[in-house]
Parts: sequence; structure tokens; C-alpha cells
Amino acid sequence: MLSHTVIETIVRAALEEDLGATGFDATSEFVIPAQAQGQALLRARQSGVLAGLIPALTAFSLIDGDMDMTIHAQDGDTLEAGQAIATIEGPARALLTAERTALNLLTHMSGIASLTARYVEEIKGTGATICDTRKTLPGLRTLQKYAVRMGGGSNHRFGLGDAILIKDNHIALAGGSIGEALDRAGLLAGHTLKIEIEVDTLEQLEDVLEHGGADIVMLDNMDVKTLVKAVKLVDGRMTTEASGGVSLDTVRAIAETGVDYISAGSLTHSAPALDIGLDIEG
Amino acid sequence: MLSHTVIETIVRAALEEDLGATGFDATSEFVIPAQAQGQALLRARQSGVLAGLIPALTAFSLIDGDMDMTIHAQDGDTLEAGQAIATIEGPARALLTAERTALNLLTHMSGIASLTARYVEEIKGTGATICDTRKTLPGLRTLQKYAVRMGGGSNHRFGLGDAILIKDNHIALAGGSIGEALDRAGLLAGHTLKIEIEVDTLEQLEDVLEHGGADIVMLDNMDVKTLVKAVKLVDGRMTTEASGGVSLDTVRAIAETGVDYISAGSLTHSAPALDIGLDIEG
Amino acid sequence: MLSHTVIETIVRAALEEDLGATGFDATSEFVIPAQAQGQALLRARQSGVLAGLIPALTAFSLIDGDMDMTIHAQDGDTLEAGQAIATIEGPARALLTAERTALNLLTHMSGIASLTARYVEEIKGTGATICDTRKTLPGLRTLQKYAVRMGGGSNHRFGLGDAILIKDNHIALAGGSIGEALDRAGLLAGHTLKIEIEVDTLEQLEDVLEHGGADIVMLDNMDVKTLVKAVKLVDGRMTTEASGGVSLDTVRAIAETGVDYISAGSLTHSAPALDIGLDIEG
Amino acid sequence: MLSHTVIETIVRAALEEDLGATGFDATSEFVIPAQAQGQALLRARQSGVLAGLIPALTAFSLIDGDMDMTIHAQDGDTLEAGQAIATIEGPARALLTAERTALNLLTHMSGIASLTARYVEEIKGTGATICDTRKTLPGLRTLQKYAVRMGGGSNHRFGLGDAILIKDNHIALAGGSIGEALDRAGLLAGHTLKIEIEVDTLEQLEDVLEHGGADIVMLDNMDVKTLVKAVKLVDGRMTTEASGGVSLDTVRAIAETGVDYISAGSLTHSAPALDIGLDIEG
Amino acid sequence: MLSHTVIETIVRAALEEDLGATGFDATSEFVIPAQAQGQALLRARQSGVLAGLIPALTAFSLIDGDMDMTIHAQDGDTLEAGQAIATIEGPARALLTAERTALNLLTHMSGIASLTARYVEEIKGTGATICDTRKTLPGLRTLQKYAVRMGGGSNHRFGLGDAILIKDNHIALAGGSIGEALDRAGLLAGHTLKIEIEVDTLEQLEDVLEHGGADIVMLDNMDVKTLVKAVKLVDGRMTTEASGGVSLDTVRAIAETGVDYISAGSLTHSAPALDIGLDIEG
Amino acid sequence: MLSHTVIETIVRAALEEDLGATGFDATSEFVIPAQAQGQALLRARQSGVLAGLIPALTAFSLIDGDMDMTIHAQDGDTLEAGQAIATIEGPARALLTAERTALNLLTHMSGIASLTARYVEEIKGTGATICDTRKTLPGLRTLQKYAVRMGGGSNHRFGLGDAILIKDNHIALAGGSIGEALDRAGLLAGHTLKIEIEVDTLEQLEDVLEHGGADIVMLDNMDVKTLVKAVKLVDGRMTTEASGGVSLDTVRAIAETGVDYISAGSLTHSAPALDIGLDIEG
Repeated sequence: MLSHTVIETIVRAALEEDLGATGFDATSEFVIPAQAQGQALLRARQSGVLAGLIPALTAFSLIDGDMDMTIHAQDGDTLEAGQAIATIEGPARALLTAERTALNLLTHMSGIASLTARYVEEIKGTGATICDTRKTLPGLRTLQKYAVRMGGGSNHRFGLGDAILIKDNHIALAGGSIGEALDRAGLLAGHTLKIEIEVDTLEQLEDVLEHGGADIVMLDNMDVKTLVKAVKLVDGRMTTEASGGVSLDTVRAIAETGVDYISAGSLTHSAPALDIGLDIEG
Repeated sequence: MLSHTVIETIVRAALEEDLGATGFDATSEFVIPAQAQGQALLRARQSGVLAGLIPALTAFSLIDGDMDMTIHAQDGDTLEAGQAIATIEGPARALLTAERTALNLLTHMSGIASLTARYVEEIKGTGATICDTRKTLPGLRTLQKYAVRMGGGSNHRFGLGDAILIKDNHIALAGGSIGEALDRAGLLAGHTLKIEIEVDTLEQLEDVLEHGGADIVMLDNMDVKTLVKAVKLVDGRMTTEASGGVSLDTVRAIAETGVDYISAGSLTHSAPALDIGLDIEG
Repeated sequence: MLSHTVIETIVRAALEEDLGATGFDATSEFVIPAQAQGQALLRARQSGVLAGLIPALTAFSLIDGDMDMTIHAQDGDTLEAGQAIATIEGPARALLTAERTALNLLTHMSGIASLTARYVEEIKGTGATICDTRKTLPGLRTLQKYAVRMGGGSNHRFGLGDAILIKDNHIALAGGSIGEALDRAGLLAGHTLKIEIEVDTLEQLEDVLEHGGADIVMLDNMDVKTLVKAVKLVDGRMTTEASGGVSLDTVRAIAETGVDYISAGSLTHSAPALDIGLDIEG
Repeated sequence: MLSHTVIETIVRAALEEDLGATGFDATSEFVIPAQAQGQALLRARQSGVLAGLIPALTAFSLIDGDMDMTIHAQDGDTLEAGQAIATIEGPARALLTAERTALNLLTHMSGIASLTARYVEEIKGTGATICDTRKTLPGLRTLQKYAVRMGGGSNHRFGLGDAILIKDNHIALAGGSIGEALDRAGLLAGHTLKIEIEVDTLEQLEDVLEHGGADIVMLDNMDVKTLVKAVKLVDGRMTTEASGGVSLDTVRAIAETGVDYISAGSLTHSAPALDIGLDIEG
Repeated sequence: MLSHTVIETIVRAALEEDLGATGFDATSEFVIPAQAQGQALLRARQSGVLAGLIPALTAFSLIDGDMDMTIHAQDGDTLEAGQAIATIEGPARALLTAERTALNLLTHMSGIASLTARYVEEIKGTGATICDTRKTLPGLRTLQKYAVRMGGGSNHRFGLGDAILIKDNHIALAGGSIGEALDRAGLLAGHTLKIEIEVDTLEQLEDVLEHGGADIVMLDNMDVKTLVKAVKLVDGRMTTEASGGVSLDTVRAIAETGVDYISAGSLTHSAPALDIGLDIEG
Repeated sequence: MLSHTVIETIVRAALEEDLGATGFDATSEFVIPAQAQGQALLRARQSGVLAGLIPALTAFSLIDGDMDMTIHAQDGDTLEAGQAIATIEGPARALLTAERTALNLLTHMSGIASLTARYVEEIKGTGATICDTRKTLPGLRTLQKYAVRMGGGSNHRFGLGDAILIKDNHIALAGGSIGEALDRAGLLAGHTLKIEIEVDTLEQLEDVLEHGGADIVMLDNMDVKTLVKAVKLVDGRMTTEASGGVSLDTVRAIAETGVDYISAGSLTHSAPALDIGLDIEG
């Protein structure tokens, strides 16, 4: 669950983006009588995993407090094409004023949950877990990472402050020594922060293992053979995370190398929307 | 071009989302010496169309005012894989603090521009124009629609207030009569607003043509044969816009029916990111 | 109607402007007992047209959720001097804390509606329609343009994005050619945007007519004789809009020239407030 | 002077209101070449008093940092019709993108300064001072009260927290006793706050004088004869402020009664805009 | 009382600071079952004065609207160690998500009220009143000054705009003349603003008395003997305010000099939190 | 270092809180000539540790861009009473407009750094590290935790999202089993998050040790003898953190028990301000 206050802030901004300085939906206002009531059904037009129902419903309730809502499915549920998600009844103008904002939230978040679920399905039975990255879209990190959880994935960092992640660029700009970078981080980082370090080669991995001081090692852009060797080298002394080149085609092989986590930026930066529509009912 | 004040507001929010209550990048701060300088190159790792360079560079300059930037490519340029986009020189910690926010903006916007450009290429030589929809991601409409323009596409409405668009749901909730809906809209809409109406069948299209009062007709989810008939029926009396079922596979055939515009929600709700990276140099 | 979320955001900001860092109304708090209840009547002290009732009532309900409200008139209604608008009952301190913000909203918006209604009355029976401009007060465009509608007027653009309006300054800065300006706009503007162009002389109008590509022509600062000729020249091929020198004294004559729209910046930049007061009742 | 940070926040919001989700000025962008430079002159088209020049210029500089500005007049200066105010040189697109926001700020603020100056002129030679009220437009109080100062007026309260002002409604809701209201206020109000009380009759005024505890008495809606008596009664023991029924026709007579201050809501809620234009030069 | 809209804005921001981009409380969410209900008791662990109960309870209700609250004490009440303040019942996850934000508000505000009450107690029976300053913590002025009132203190200025306070630095930068500074202020300040001036010596005080034009004199950093002389010199012609070197050890002696007000920055910049805890009940 | 964009946002809000709807500093404006320049020296009036210099200087530069600043000390430096911190030269009005906001930031942050440094000094030579908590003041977490670092302390969590911290209340509401709580957290928490658990007794500690799954154990409110036993029991298998009852009097004894971290809420909720003043020079 996301906190209500967080959802309200995001949805209010999304509605105001669509309403602009006009402040109302001219089409609904001009075409539909003020007193008209309507009943609308959110329905999946494609199979997938639901995420974002509360944000979507909040769009309707922020436009008009007099909406009756009946929920037919929950976030995290697998939907069949055609399956009913929620029924919303209320003033007809308000229904259509909120429609696009609600659907934009719901189809994007469900798209992410659905793509995540496909990755999760793909690696079923292996010991690996799919997780996201900070490759999210500006302003949408909270919603996107929630959607990853709804799809069965796990979350990597939410921001720059919730773990230390030393990447190749840090090492390069710090002077090139993995050990020195780990030492500095170990000295300065608070005790509640884990330290993760990226390695690109087995030699770097050996450096890390020898030096100590890392909780997690990111095995970046390694081929499957190298990953197998890396996992063997680590031998349970650190959490392993494979990254780079992760796709639905490659993820099973990567998972079978024995890595603990597989992080995929595409979950949040490239997930296609799930097709969900709003049908007006008799 | 987007106005500078608009870009700054969006990028500042994106940086603050990543920095959170921590307010600095712990990894860079702890690992890299304060006085270290660095030079970084934004480089395409995949071919595509560039969009979002100014927002991306603004991320660096908002973190530290002492950045030197050299621009090698412009928004709208076609990039080869490996092509240099911009060089940024400055304090090493700041370079890495801004990196992810800059790349998130740049890869998303370039992803949209690149997908748009593929659609534009696909229908070259026909009289049709590709355009976007309001199926954008919350908070990102300004940037996404800018990216569509950079890819050679055209923009549909930016919000509920910049045209009247009467869809099937409006007609249903207004009582079902196309003519009545057009009359009400014509009476109440300001003279600077165009009126567009969605039709799903040729019968509805005939109603619209007979009744008059629409500037644009949206031919929704019609197959190619029906579109050909619709275009013939309209015969230049309204602008025609095909929507629904638009993909890279189908767009050429749709364009060849003679419609004026083809709107595709996928440009903004489902465009995969373009792979662009930041390399630390020398 | 304006969307509830839009009204709430504006009214909340207005209340916070008045409350400042103090955060409460010292006078009410210090002078009136905490448990005192009161009944207040919003009453017109001058005849006019009502606009802004919901924003005004929202000021009371945001200060205290325990208000009972009875509405005696609706936005758009013509009010006699002395006519009751709404009764508000609740905690006495809250009534007076919200009073000024509520009245500031209501008297300004009703002032605009009332002035608009006088223009509308003035041109009754002609085919012309009164509309506003973008000459609004910063931060108040949504409320001001709503008030114009309540007064029976029509809205021109809500912002820079909802139509193309090529003015003399654009033509001057673009190199001076009306035709070139229309060509560029026609090529680049999205199909949902109308194109309006300003002309100051009949010669320019002939250029526009000959060249084509404009939906609306703004006939700027023309005297009545010239307007008559302009309307004849246009002969229904474009929407005509007269602007400049529009006042209650001149508007009838302008309307009788046969122009379609008459835009008046004074509706929003110079409308005097309508006198409405809050009376405490027995 | 207003603090720069305050002006920037207000002007940024005003620009974003006009730019909306579009984020750029489509007309300027589509019609004017990217590299075109322009020179524009802000010029009074009507005589009056200037106010708001820095906010207006800030609109240009926030859109584009590369503007050259030359100032020909200062806030508070009396302008002749036709007088030059400032020259702005820079990118042509940016000049026109900011134009309307700049003019909306400048013409509104100068309108208030000009109306204030007419009141000030009207009462010249009397001992009275013109001041404003809290009857300002939502969100614009800072700018409006600054404009009153530029017109030679004085400021009444900026919000609910900077003085105690006990009005008839407070007394009514507190139980009806002037003395009790003054006692409570005297007991609870901080020592840095003045206490002002409204009276409608000479009897109430005698109550106030007898009871003591007020710094300022507001003589509300009294005719000139009564005001004369009231001023005599007060005899310098409190500051006197006349309010209600103040217009350019009545203000001289009111001032000649000997009151210290005359407050007029119309300065801020009903001042017509001053006509100022932007001319593109050579 | 603080206005509800003001409290809500502050508390919402405080919650969002704690929730960050994560948007939920991972610990509660992961450890506590979704359907678990809980009952929590806010209880003083130290004696003191309560302040901030409504802000604290608002933290709970903003996280989850389904909270039942029972209030056992009111702001301004003196609490014994162990005394119950309020019982909150509702979803267990929400209780713990809001806990820290609620306690941070409550313990800080109660800390200020408690410290203020100790000062008030210390000077009981003298004619002096304790008041605060503008030495508040950024963003917390409204809440801190409210807490001072709850502790029995009085408020000095809420911001730069609610009184004129001429300090030594103003006089120095204005050229050094107390009289000139008072004249300028008297000429330009609105009639609703009091004028306070700081003096450091009896000579300066004599200048102020001789010159006139000040409502309040701040006797800054004077020892008790000098204060006694100063009060005698003033002899009721101005309000006197002692400032500087005010502590619980010195305040009684200062109060007994006969000054009217004693201002202490430490009330708001250095008050230790009052220990209040949240206990989960059977 | 804090990121510039973060500092600017916080300081801008602090200035606007002080300026309110007035928008300028009436005292400086009315008393000091517009063209007056001044030179001011920030100087410690008490010994301590400096923190917040950049935020303080940003207050001056946001009010007026024409300030010259010379820095004499850096954040983290130990200051003697009387020591110069920075010289600021510029427009005199602006110097005094920003003064209070600058000092409020600087004295609060330096107060925290100074208190932290005293704790750090107290435990010198032991292996323990002082750290803060989430017991911060609303809106000030970023600045407060930065100040802790400047005083030589370490940071605990910045928000609910950067580690799992299972407290007694979580366990109670989850049903009472430590093992179950750890299992659920271990299953659901992302791999980049550490898991900390609070124990109040040695029995609970044994449960935690036996069960496994925690990275850090918070030894809450244990006396020194119990802490010694706890540290022995843990024997390096987890990071240990003592909390509760931490004061300058007790911290040395706690540190000597061998715990790794000692967390103290008082660093941020009860640190008295450090006395720093602004002297006008020459």
C-alpha cells in the first residue's frame, strides 16, 4: 500500500496537469447535462497484472466526492482480457473529466506490474529475484516501484540515500582503486546503509572479495559463463546482483547462474502500458 | 524549444525526488575527493533520435553551477550508435550526483522521439501525419509531447482545454444523439476551439457529415477498408484522424487510406527508452 | 463548473496568504469565545450577476469542516440589491476568519460576471458574442474566465497553447510577411489548433483572405466603418473578431457591423468588484 | 522594493499559468525563426503612475536569460501618454512569449498606483492619508499593496496577523459589548500589535473613548457631518480612519473632516488597468 | 487554535519528508498483517505542558482516514509524567507509519510550551509578560509561536511585516541617528504598525524619549540596575521590553525591574523536546 | 555538502516565511537609504562547531544577487568565541532583510553540530560512534542530519524507506513473535535494505541471535551492565546500537560497554542554538 497522502498529492497534480488553466473539462461540460448520472466499468482489454487501482479511483473522487465505487479486483491480481476491475457510479461529467488521468495512471502502473510478472514467471524455480533500478521516469518513482512490487518484483534503491552503490564511474573519478573506494565508503557511510559495488570483470570481483567491506556485488554486463564463475567465486560471502543485458530472452539463463538478484531498468523505463478501458454502462 | 522556466521546474523536482531527505549523493560524497574534477561524455549506445538534451544538461547545472558543457548534437538529430552527444566537465561528485536524473530524462525523451521517427519514416510519401494523444504519463506531458515533435510528429491536445473532443462515452452519457452533442458543443465552445468528434461506423460518420459542426472527425478502430470509405465520404469537408490499432505494422496501410492524421497513444505510453550512457573520460 | 480539486487549490492558497505565518485570525480568536456559534448571510448590496459562490463557500469549509450552508442563488443568477445569496452557520471564529477571503473571491468574480452581462445585454439582438482575452490577472485566469462564462460571455484562449494567434508583433519579428507567417503556422501547428491572425487594415485583410490558412481574423482597432467593410470582405469565409476600443459605449455599434466576436480585455483586467457583504444574523 | 525571491516566485507562477502543459509559445515558435533577435519598447499609452517594472522585466528574463534591458522610468514615476518605460532586446521568440505575462503584471500594478495617485492628489493639503484594505485579489496582495505605495498611498494590514481589527461582526458574535471585546483583545494580543475597532455611530465611539484600549478607531460609513463630530470627540486620543463610501467624488470632503486615514477597498479590488503596450522596434 | 488548512499543509509536508520516494513505511508493511488493528496511547513520560495535539492527530488521520481518536487532554494543559493524552485506534500499519511524525510535532511543540510555562511560573506576581522572538526554526514559526501561547507566553512579531523594529544594525547602517531613524519610520510606516526601537544605553533611551515616535522600546542586554533606571526614565510613556541574557536564572530579577515584556529567543531556538511516547495497548 | 538545489529550496521557503505577504522588510526599507552599502561580519559569540554556512550565505544572495562574501571558516571547523566566520558586503537593506533567516539557519545547525561534537569528544578512544535518529523537526531533517555529520556524528535512517527498523510496537502489533517479524521482513525487504531490530531484554536478544536475519540490533534502554552482557552475547555477529537514556553524563559509560553505535534523539530534537551574531562593521 502507498500512503493515502502520497497518492493524493500525485493524483491531484496529474489532474491539474490535464485541466490546466481551463479548470474544467469543456467537452463534458458543454455536451453532457449537469444532472446526468453515469455508471462506468474499468475493464482489462488485455491480460496482465493489475496495479494502480487506488490512484485511479482517487482521480475520480478528487473530481467529485459523490462517486460510488465497487472494486472487483485488487492490485497484484492477474487479469484476463475482458475482466472487470471496478465500477464507478456518479455524475456523468465528472466520470469523463477524470477518465484519462485515471487510465493513464492505471495502464502505466499495470504495464509495469505485468512486465515484472513476466520476468518473475520466466525465472520461476531458480533462486533468483527480479528487481528494479533507479532508471525510473521523473516524478513517477514511487508509483513505478510500487507497481514492480505488485508484479512480484523486489525494489532496489528508491533514491541516492538508501544504500551506497559504487559504480565504475565512481571508482574512475575517485582514482581507480576499488579498495580505496570501499574503505572510504566503509568509514563514512552510516551503519544502516548497505554498500554495493559494481564489478565488470572477475579480476575486479577478486579485488572486492579480498578487500572486503561490500554487502552486495553488482556483476555488470557479464556473460552467462562469467556469471557462473563469479557466483562460484563469491560463494555466499556477498549478495550477488546481475545487471546489464537483461531481457525476457536472457533472464532465465542469467537466473540459472545462481545469482541472487537480477536488476532490470526496462521494468520502469520501457514497460508498455497495459490496455485497460473505461466502458459506460447501460 | 521549451521555456527555460518550465524545464527548470521539472528538473528541479526530478533531482529532489532522487536526493530525498538525504539531500546529497552519499556514494559520490563518501568515495570521491571533494576537489576531484571530471569530464563526462553523453553518448548514444543505440541509434535513434535525440530529445531532451537541455533538460539533461540542466540537471548537471542545477547540482553545480560550475559545469562546462560542449554540445555535439541537437534535439531532433538522428544519432548513430556510439555518437557523442555532449561533453560535461566539472566537479566529479556533482557529475555523478546528477547522472541518473539526466539520463532518465534523456533516455525517455529520446525513446519517444525515436519511436515517433520510426512511425514518420514508415508513412513517408503518404499525405498522413503522425500525432500523439493525451495518453501520457502523469507529470510528463510537456516533455513527452516535446519529444514527439522532435521525432517529427505532431501534437494532439495538451489538455482538456485546448479543443473539444466528443468521444463515444460523451455521446452515450449525453443521451446518444450525435447531432445534439455537436449542437451543444457548437453553442457553448469558444470560437478559438476546434470541435472533434469520434465515430465508430460509417453510419455515424454520415450523421456527422449531414449535421455539420465538426472540424475534425476521429475514425476510431476502423479497418482499412472502412477507412478508405470514410475518407471518400468525408471528401475533404473535415480533417480526418484515424485512431486505434495503430502500430508500426499497421500504420503504412492506415496512412495509405488517405486519412490526414494518425494518432498513436503508444508514442507516449509505451515507448522504450533509448540507450544513452555517460562515460567518464581520461 | 470548475473542478473541485482546482477550486480547493486556489482557495487554500488564498487563505494561507491571509493567515500568513500567524496561522490563525488573532482578532476572532481573542475577541470571540471558542464555543460561540454564528449564522451569516451573504447578501448582494448592489445588483449584478453572481459568480464564485463555490469558491467562496470553500473558504469557509476549509477553515472549519463543521459549517452548514444553505444556498439561495446560483452562479449566473441575476441578483437584486439586497438579495440573499447563501446562509452559513457554524463556529463564529471560523466564520470571520474566512470572511474576507470568501468575499474577495466572490466580489471579484461577480464583478467580472456583472460587467460581462452588461456587455451581453448591450449587444442583444445582434449576432455578435462577447469574449474575453488573455489580459487576466496573474494566478486568477481560471476563476476570471469562469466568471466571464457566468456573465454570458465566451472564452478566448486560456493560455499560449490552445490556439495560434499571430499578432502584428509576430509578423514584424518574423520578417513582415503575413503569408509566410500563415504558411509556417499551417505547417507546424497541430491539427486541433485553430489559427487566428490579427490585421490592422483592409489591405492586410485582403492578404489574409487571398492567402488562406486562417480560421479566425482579429480586426484590431478598426473604426466602425472599416469593420463594416471588413465583414463584407470576409463574407463568412473566416470567423471575425473585433478587438480594441471596446467599451460599453462603443460595443453596440461594433456588434452591428456584423462581426462574430468582440473581445474585451477590460472584462478581466478592469472589472470593478460587485458589492456583496456578509451579515451576521440574530 | 520587493525582495527578489518574492518577485521571482510570483512571476514564475504567472508564466507557468500562461504556458500550461504546452510549455512553450506555439505561435512564436512556429512563426518566428529561432535565431531572430528583436527590440521591444514598453510604452505608456495613457498617463498614470508606473508600478511593477521589475516583475514585468523578470518575466522576460525568466523566459530567456539573454535579454538586454534599459530602464527609462522607475516605479512611482508619473508617466505621460506615449512615454517610454523600458527597452528590452533579445531573442524574438522569448520577447513575445513573455509579453502578455509582463503586461498583465505591469498594467494591473500601474493601474492601482495610478488610481491611488488620483486619490492622493485629490486630498492634497489636508492632513489625511489614503490607505488600502485587505480587499485584495487572491494571490496578488503583495504586488497590489506595493503598487499602492508606489501611488503614494499607505498600507493597512497585510493579513490577519499584523494588527487586531475588531469589526461590527466580531462584536456581534462576541456578545455585543464593545468594552468586553476591547478588554479581551487587550489581554491577549501581543504588545507589538495595534488594536483597531470599528464604530458605526457616535454613541459607539463614546463607548470606545470611555473604555480605552484602542489605538485606532475606524469610523465606518459615517457621513461628513458625523465624521466632523467624531474627529472632534476623539480629539487626538486615537488615530482615526474613515472607511466606507470612499470615492474620488467624496474623498476630499472626507479628508477635510480632519480624519487621519481614509481606507479605500477600491484601490485594490476595482482599479482599472493602466494602458501600457509593447512595441516592436525597427 | 490554528486554522485547519494551515495544520494540514504543514503535517502533509512532514509526512512526505519521512515517506520520501518510497511512499510507504516498509517496516510496518512488511512486518504487520494488512488487516491488523491496533490501539495506541499517547502518554507523557515527563511532566510539562501539552501543545500540538491537533497537528499530531492530523498525522494519523492523513495516513488513514479510518482512525478513531479519543482526546484525554487539551493543548495548554499541564501534564504529569505518565498522564494519558489521547487514544488512537485504527489500522496497525497506519498507526506506526504516522507515529514518528506525530511525536516529532508533539514533543517539539510541547517542549516549547513547557519551557515557556517555566518562565511564566518564574515571574508570577510581577507585572511582566514573557514573549518570543523571530529566532524560530525555518518553516516552524507558526507551530512554535502557537506553542509559546499554549505555555502562557505572548507573541512578538510573526514576520518582518507586522511591526517596525529598529535595531542597532539598522541605526548603524542608516547613519547612526536614532532620531532620524524614528522620523523616517514614522513617516513611512502604515498606521496599523507599531514602532519599536532597540536601545543599549540609558543615553540612547533618553534620545528616544526626547524624540518621541516609538511605541515600544527594547532595552537590550542591560543589567538589572540599568533596567531599573530605564523603567523609571520611561515612566509609562512607552511599552518596555527587556531582551538579551534572559534565562530561567535571570528572568525573575529582570521581571522585578518593572519592565512590561521580556523576550527570550531560547523559547523557540533552544527548547528541549518534552518526552512523550506512543504505547501500543493490549 | 548538500546539493545546491536542495539548499536553495529550503532557504527560499525560510525567507518567504519571514517576508510573508508584505514581501519586503519594512524596517530596513523605511529606515535605511536605498543606496546605502554595508559590511557585516558573522561572528561566533560562543565556542562550538560551525554548520550551515552555505545555507546562511544563500539567504543573503537570494535577497540580493550583488553580495560579496568572504569565508573565514568552514562547516565542521571548531570555533572560538569571537571568531570570524564570514564577511558579507552589499546593499544595506538586503543585509538586514536576510539577517534573521541566515542566523536562524546557522545558529540551529551549528547548535546541533556543537552538541554532536561534545558527544563525540566524550567517547573518544572507545570504539563507539555517535549517531542521530529520525527524531528531527518537521521540514528540517536534511539540514539537521547534515549538521550531525559536521559535528563528527554519523547518520541513522533519513526516512522510513532507507532501512527496516522493527521496534517493540511493530512486534506487538504483528502478534508478538520476534522470529516471525524477522522472517516477514527478510522475505519482503529489498536486498539493499539492512534490517535492524529493537530488543529490550537479553532474552529477546537471544531470540534474535538464534533466529538470525538481522543486520543490526538496537539495545533499547538497557543499563550499562546489561549492555555489557548484550555485547558479549552478540560477539560481533551483528552491529550493536545502544539507544535510550543517552546523555552527556551517561554516554561514556555506554560507549565503554563495547557497543558499536549510540543513537541520541537529543542531537536533533533538543540541541540548543549556538550563539552567532551579525555585526555591522565600519
